[in-house]
Amino acid sequence: MEQSYRLVIACPDQVGIVAKVSSFIAELGGWVLEASYHGDESCGMFYMRNEIKASSLSVSLEEFTEQFQAIADAYDMQWFISDSAKPKKMVILASQSSHCLADILHRWRSGDLHCDIAAVISNHENLRSMVDWHGVDYHHIKINADNKVEANRQITDLLQQYDADFIVLARYMQIIPASLCEQYPGKIINIHHSFLPSFIGANPYQKAFERGVKLIGATCHYVTAQLDEGPIIDQDVIRVNHRHNKDDMVRLGKDVATQVLSRGIRMHLEDRVIVQGNKTVILD
Amino acid sequence: MEQSYRLVIACPDQVGIVAKVSSFIAELGGWVLEASYHGDESCGMFYMRNEIKASSLSVSLEEFTEQFQAIADAYDMQWFISDSAKPKKMVILASQSSHCLADILHRWRSGDLHCDIAAVISNHENLRSMVDWHGVDYHHIKINADNKVEANRQITDLLQQYDADFIVLARYMQIIPASLCEQYPGKIINIHHSFLPSFIGANPYQKAFERGVKLIGATCHYVTAQLDEGPIIDQDVIRVNHRHNKDDMVRLGKDVATQVLSRGIRMHLEDRVIVQGNKTVILD
Amino acid sequence: MEQSYRLVIACPDQVGIVAKVSSFIAELGGWVLEASYHGDESCGMFYMRNEIKASSLSVSLEEFTEQFQAIADAYDMQWFISDSAKPKKMVILASQSSHCLADILHRWRSGDLHCDIAAVISNHENLRSMVDWHGVDYHHIKINADNKVEANRQITDLLQQYDADFIVLARYMQIIPASLCEQYPGKIINIHHSFLPSFIGANPYQKAFERGVKLIGATCHYVTAQLDEGPIIDQDVIRVNHRHNKDDMVRLGKDVATQVLSRGIRMHLEDRVIVQGNKTVILD
Amino acid sequence: MEQSYRLVIACPDQVGIVAKVSSFIAELGGWVLEASYHGDESCGMFYMRNEIKASSLSVSLEEFTEQFQAIADAYDMQWFISDSAKPKKMVILASQSSHCLADILHRWRSGDLHCDIAAVISNHENLRSMVDWHGVDYHHIKINADNKVEANRQITDLLQQYDADFIVLARYMQIIPASLCEQYPGKIINIHHSFLPSFIGANPYQKAFERGVKLIGATCHYVTAQLDEGPIIDQDVIRVNHRHNKDDMVRLGKDVATQVLSRGIRMHLEDRVIVQGNKTVILD
Repeated sequence: MEQSYRLVIACPDQVGIVAKVSSFIAELGGWVLEASYHGDESCGMFYMRNEIKASSLSVSLEEFTEQFQAIADAYDMQWFISDSAKPKKMVILASQSSHCLADILHRWRSGDLHCDIAAVISNHENLRSMVDWHGVDYHHIKINADNKVEANRQITDLLQQYDADFIVLARYMQIIPASLCEQYPGKIINIHHSFLPSFIGANPYQKAFERGVKLIGATCHYVTAQLDEGPIIDQDVIRVNHRHNKDDMVRLGKDVATQVLSRGIRMHLEDRVIVQGNKTVILD
Repeated sequence: MEQSYRLVIACPDQVGIVAKVSSFIAELGGWVLEASYHGDESCGMFYMRNEIKASSLSVSLEEFTEQFQAIADAYDMQWFISDSAKPKKMVILASQSSHCLADILHRWRSGDLHCDIAAVISNHENLRSMVDWHGVDYHHIKINADNKVEANRQITDLLQQYDADFIVLARYMQIIPASLCEQYPGKIINIHHSFLPSFIGANPYQKAFERGVKLIGATCHYVTAQLDEGPIIDQDVIRVNHRHNKDDMVRLGKDVATQVLSRGIRMHLEDRVIVQGNKTVILD
Repeated sequence: MEQSYRLVIACPDQVGIVAKVSSFIAELGGWVLEASYHGDESCGMFYMRNEIKASSLSVSLEEFTEQFQAIADAYDMQWFISDSAKPKKMVILASQSSHCLADILHRWRSGDLHCDIAAVISNHENLRSMVDWHGVDYHHIKINADNKVEANRQITDLLQQYDADFIVLARYMQIIPASLCEQYPGKIINIHHSFLPSFIGANPYQKAFERGVKLIGATCHYVTAQLDEGPIIDQDVIRVNHRHNKDDMVRLGKDVATQVLSRGIRMHLEDRVIVQGNKTVILD
Repeated sequence: MEQSYRLVIACPDQVGIVAKVSSFIAELGGWVLEASYHGDESCGMFYMRNEIKASSLSVSLEEFTEQFQAIADAYDMQWFISDSAKPKKMVILASQSSHCLADILHRWRSGDLHCDIAAVISNHENLRSMVDWHGVDYHHIKINADNKVEANRQITDLLQQYDADFIVLARYMQIIPASLCEQYPGKIINIHHSFLPSFIGANPYQKAFERGVKLIGATCHYVTAQLDEGPIIDQDVIRVNHRHNKDDMVRLGKDVATQVLSRGIRMHLEDRVIVQGNKTVILD
């Protein structure tokens, strides 16, 4: 993969934004590999993602950034530019279930996920040897009703130590304290094993089984202080029928959850997800 | 299509039911075109559907029915046998939206739905000419806050007059009174334009838009006195994204609703749906 | 729906195209409702679609067109601009099957397809009354081995008489002569009842049944002189199993074909489809 | 999972088979956990799968088998009964790609695939450490134009040594010699990375890219001497568009292939797949 810069912008919509930004890029010789735009009528915002071939620019990333700030100021933009050569640092929180974790590690090891996996933190020991084999640090931090505050402090410390860019909850099963959510807004990715907003909270398969739904799903979303209410990145479903008991649903649900989480992570890694209120814009 | 009888059974599970029923059918020369079974561990019930070639039986349907009753008594069965040569009588309740109604009428006219469509009852006039063209009776019964009881009485009278076997709510948008639900248990089919139990009640697309889901759906279910809580027959979803506003969701949702309703009706017509508590067993 | 202009462009890729076009639009006050771009590395081409709010432009469509030609020349563009207020004229060729035709007519009548349906031409009489009811002209032109040239001449005459912008083959089942294909390049939309390139030619369901595939499909494509080889606009599939015989496949296939064709027509009507060699770019 | 016996039968269809078999099972006290039947009109065959709770039978598996033979002879049955307590022995042939192999090993290790994985044989060294970590034997057998016969002889020897019940080609990329196909009829499972019969042979993604299809797929099938022509067990597809180049298709295709192969293996392990000519009946 060739080195590229991703310029991602959100600002109030008005005539001329694309012209301004595109002209700026073109004047610096920038070859746009991919561009996506979205103007949202309901909130009056404009979103833009340009992926620029690094070698085509006549200036350095620093100079680009400095010069672009004038435009950003004029248009009241929230923005950033990321460098594909600097992979994001992911820390994974896991529990006892291995399916999502094994899938992420395998994709990463195969070169299909362009990121650094800095560490796995788990409240159980059982996945250590798998993580070890991948050459990734493993931290076991027990968490229970009595030590929650202390355990979450240890987790927060580790995240800082590893300088995590974002956090993936790979079936972590513990509630993230509000303080941590606020420290990493739009940076904590969770996989919920139901088609949200159906079956919010614990035991979604049991609830799905009792309701007799004909499809079960999974939802990848950013974590906020409101449990299971954060902005949805991706969702998918799989067909079930009366022959499937709760255990079958668990098994089938693993496949959907694994797929949806890995797709959500990819979108995040490629800087394609913009959070807009409690929703996401996916610039693909 | 060759004439067939469909023997549908529900009873407490025990060893030997299939042997007993199959032997009975075989002794009468019955050629089984299709057979499905389901034993449900969670409630200890057994369900069975046999589709028997009518011409293969050495006895009449009446004799079959009379003789089978002994087995039914011995095994504590709820059961019925239906004759494919006697199409069920459907009455459709509609409102202003035409998509589900047009689809049902077209499938019926093309010979793809084996039933009689006895009448369409609507609280609006706008679909009369379409229904007329298909040669189906059309009744306009206005319904509003003031005349609900009287209007529902008229509807009930018409259902009896037409001797309706079952009722399809093709985007009817009115609440069915509990008394009518009880009169036609497992006989009133509704299409809800969301992936239940998400977005129960009115305006599901608005709610879906606000929640930022990435899939919208439709649910075909039997109507009970509990609004949107009846046994689900079928569901499906379609992918949406941030570019879709509420109107797009309405448009896309129509396609899903139309498909799901027609599939649900087909299952009902073929005597494949068994209601078990608040769930369905689909013997396909 | 608000009036809009759709500016659609294809040209050799180079730095600065978006800047140039966007600046041109912005200088005329153009509010871009939606923009899509695609640079194709494999062939070095760039594609662009801008949907501009008509009322926002400070010039007329004629002036816009005239002034834009200078840019088009400089960048070696193939391009056009269409006006949403001037619906395209569709002529439908049909045969005996009603499912696709009924679906298109219903969507059009409900206001979901923004076009004029000028006429239906069929080699059978059976669908006349349905088309009549929709207030659309119906022409019956018998076609057989002996009169092919003459029949196709009559069809061509009718297309010219109705000033057709594009033609939809709604399960037409006859081969379109090469001369007609060349007269309407990228303007004749066919629905093939298989997942092309599987089961090219006649009787795809029979072939699918014999091969024992577990999914059957439908393909919407532009017609070229090479039968079933034209650029694909959209495709979809539906699951089948050993219980489905050929007749079931026909029935299930109708639903897929109907959906895929209507989606393909919508993309065409909204000027989202660009033909690139034997493939399509869909600017959605 | 409770121990069960699976009685699987294929025989010419006639009245009374289910009665006979069900009565036999019931007389021995057999509790049927699950039963599926299929009568195929097109070839006059009948297929049946009964899953019987082992502890409910009043006789041993050997006695059951011996006694059942009389029925099997009378009805000209091909049949077998398998014991869920005796997991099948799988040998995997792999090449350089890890996605299918990693997925199978993980499912097996998690207890989701009930089988023994006896060994992995590969024509490359690169996956050895992953297989070692799972505690599975790894054999590297180089294969090239010059040593094909000898290499295939070594593979055949290993299969016999390990007493393989069935073989999974997890993206093996080498042609299986006809002699090996004949030795393991309906016992060699391959995953082809296209939606067969589209894009038979090598480089399906390149072909799919060139044809401009809007869905790519994967096909799990039994291997026969006719390359890519064997009976299909399962298939699935994923949506692609003009933005996806060949590398994207490779990446997306991996996910579909992995899912479809694991579903096919599960069906085989549970004795649900019956080969009928060049097709399969899946008794689920």
